[in-house]
Amino acid sequence: MRIGDLSRRSQVSVPTIKYYLREGLLSPGEATAANQAVYSDAHLQRLRLIRALIDVGRLTVAAAREVLAAVDTPGLPPHHLLGVAHHAVSRPVRPDPDDPAWRAARDEVAALIRRRDWHVSDESPALDQAAEAIRTLRALGQDDVLDECLEVYAEAADLVAAREVRAVVSRQDPARMVEGVVTGTVLGEALLDALRLLAQESESGRLLG
Amino acid sequence: MRIGDLSRRSQVSVPTIKYYLREGLLSPGEATAANQAVYSDAHLQRLRLIRALIDVGRLTVAAAREVLAAVDTPGLPPHHLLGVAHHAVSRPVRPDPDDPAWRAARDEVAALIRRRDWHVSDESPALDQAAEAIRTLRALGQDDVLDECLEVYAEAADLVAAREVRAVVSRQDPARMVEGVVTGTVLGEALLDALRLLAQESESGRLLG
Repeated sequence: MRIGDLSRRSQVSVPTIKYYLREGLLSPGEATAANQAVYSDAHLQRLRLIRALIDVGRLTVAAAREVLAAVDTPGLPPHHLLGVAHHAVSRPVRPDPDDPAWRAARDEVAALIRRRDWHVSDESPALDQAAEAIRTLRALGQDDVLDECLEVYAEAADLVAAREVRAVVSRQDPARMVEGVVTGTVLGEALLDALRLLAQESESGRLLG
Repeated sequence: MRIGDLSRRSQVSVPTIKYYLREGLLSPGEATAANQAVYSDAHLQRLRLIRALIDVGRLTVAAAREVLAAVDTPGLPPHHLLGVAHHAVSRPVRPDPDDPAWRAARDEVAALIRRRDWHVSDESPALDQAAEAIRTLRALGQDDVLDECLEVYAEAADLVAAREVRAVVSRQDPARMVEGVVTGTVLGEALLDALRLLAQESESGRLLG
């Protein structure tokens, strides 16, 4: 298909498609003339994945490129790819390692990980994201809610992660596994967050409405 | 305290504080001379809340202003405030109502809500966020993972929401309740998302590492 058809079928504008081509997120089409190229269904599928990462997953173009480069690396073990996907979705944190409140929050995360018997790398960006959320809740005087909810957050995390990882691993094809890791990490978060808001609204209406 | 002390104690730069003052997120200090004002601990606390919403919660300045205006409205019922907080954290979606895939995803969310016996407004932005995540996962051919995980996401959402809402409601002071709704919605999401990534990493390492 021509770039116009690719645009129509993907609902992504031609200038945006050209931008992704320039930025290397999308591979070039097959040249048919000096200024013309044709695109395949694989381009359409890739374009949908790019939009999913950026629109639904709220990844920056740079983060999406990083994830797609990993997807395109043949033989990259899915567990390694998970690290790349996690790096891309994690909220950036600039901790102050000398801040006692920060160190206390980081210790609290470490203790939680021991209690749950989770095995994670010391380099996981999610460690900092969790510590920063805890540090901030305590700095804002929200200790009661945090202490009441921390364990149940971890329990919910365990519940969904076990099912998600099993679903992806049960795919036999490595390419499909890789795709599942990326989309599951990014879109699963958007879905879980949305359902939590709906459940909160329902529960809040029941107790207060 | 002077603006310099407020900056030092909050670790927010003076130009950023002035920006929040201009934008109305932070109320003016008490004027002591033509070009000087003093700020109180309430300003410091408010500044921490602003940074929490923007840095950890990833809210835009406009969304943070919307939430803070609701926090500042005396007598606003907490259940109503929850709607404002939800609006601010929801990921914007521009659905195409004529797209059959979008309508199917929206029906899937409606069916899930009936199964869980959740009572939510038809206007909840989280309905669109959930439908968009489902539509995208299906468009990307991730039906197997979605079908395997949708119910467990809802179960996890119920689990955390019940505890979160109860913790906030058990506060007697309305102002503290309001603060709990806002911080719990925004920071709880960051914390839950981070713990899910850690649990995924641990489970993935166990099965694949």
